[in-house]
Amino acid sequence: VKKTIPVREGVNAANRRFADGNRALFAAHGVAVINLIGSPGCGKTTLLEETLRRLDSRLRLIIIEGDVETDLDAKRLAGSDADIIQINTHGSCHLNARQISETIAGLPTDKLEATDLIIIENVGNLVCPSSFDLGERMKVAVLSVPEGDEKPEKYPALFLQSGIALITKLDLVQYTDFNLPAARERICRLNPEARVYPLSAKTGEGMEAWITELVQLK
Amino acid sequence: VKKTIPVREGVNAANRRFADGNRALFAAHGVAVINLIGSPGCGKTTLLEETLRRLDSRLRLIIIEGDVETDLDAKRLAGSDADIIQINTHGSCHLNARQISETIAGLPTDKLEATDLIIIENVGNLVCPSSFDLGERMKVAVLSVPEGDEKPEKYPALFLQSGIALITKLDLVQYTDFNLPAARERICRLNPEARVYPLSAKTGEGMEAWITELVQLK
Repeated sequence: VKKTIPVREGVNAANRRFADGNRALFAAHGVAVINLIGSPGCGKTTLLEETLRRLDSRLRLIIIEGDVETDLDAKRLAGSDADIIQINTHGSCHLNARQISETIAGLPTDKLEATDLIIIENVGNLVCPSSFDLGERMKVAVLSVPEGDEKPEKYPALFLQSGIALITKLDLVQYTDFNLPAARERICRLNPEARVYPLSAKTGEGMEAWITELVQLK
Repeated sequence: VKKTIPVREGVNAANRRFADGNRALFAAHGVAVINLIGSPGCGKTTLLEETLRRLDSRLRLIIIEGDVETDLDAKRLAGSDADIIQINTHGSCHLNARQISETIAGLPTDKLEATDLIIIENVGNLVCPSSFDLGERMKVAVLSVPEGDEKPEKYPALFLQSGIALITKLDLVQYTDFNLPAARERICRLNPEARVYPLSAKTGEGMEAWITELVQLK
């Protein structure tokens, strides 16, 4: 245990350096960046599919897809106007700022200048990604109805840091015990500043408030 | 990056030592131990509630509840015949073998001798817990229907190592795009030895096959 402490700090300090660099670069080019974090299967990719469809070229977008393995999610998003970039972490449970830095460095010259918004879909995980600043402007927490309304209390770190919390798969609320006011209250007790948007990418319910947030980030 | 490699090995080696010790201790006392791993909200605790109800004192049980924060899950299981022990990881995304070792060391003398089965409910996370051997006899993967049938392919490590894969929340299958044969095929392609049990703790469908597995572990 003694051995892990200085190293953990070393990893975090290195990550912070890359995150600060990313943030400065994004600010210099006027690019808004959000970091989408939630459990596996909470509906992040389906949300992005519907988000891209509704934004319909209003924003010049880059999507960075973080996955342990496979490019299944990137393939789902291909065909939109957005540029889709896949990062495979090969076993690692979160994206780190260095991966984002290297990805950005690999873009064509002037690409950032011609970009309004970068959405990073992090690895599906409600715990670890919230410990790794990527240099984003805002974290967005994604909690799906089938996961249960008590999850913000059980996994507080993400909700404490998120500017927006999305409650996805609202179309399933009638088939589960999910208590929407209780979920909202738990999130707001942790983080009174968070904007909470219940929505369903499947039925479209609640999507417009989320789209409005994105357009205003420009 | 150079700095992290020896340390990562250090952490893993230390974990393996504790895991081997746990395994030897469990074997010496004839206790079967399973390590239940799945995403937040995949239904692990609801499965355990229904499992305890159906086992109805057929096995002398200890449940170890791993959570980042709170004892909400342990409270849900209180009132059964099983002994419930809560471990809070305070930010860490997985249980490690040392936590299990210390928990077992804190049990009353002869408690292990009077135990048939220990079920460890790991922290809700489809990635990290599968890298930390706890000294269990078997890992059990838990995938819920709303997460989607492609998840075994996206998060292969857990499914590669699990003796049993449970597909939970089967009652929601009619409201989602989840393809049960496809999910089963993906799991079996990764791990042809895995037994796959689709079930619903809510309706009871499929529960008996799982209960039979547990009783046979004795």
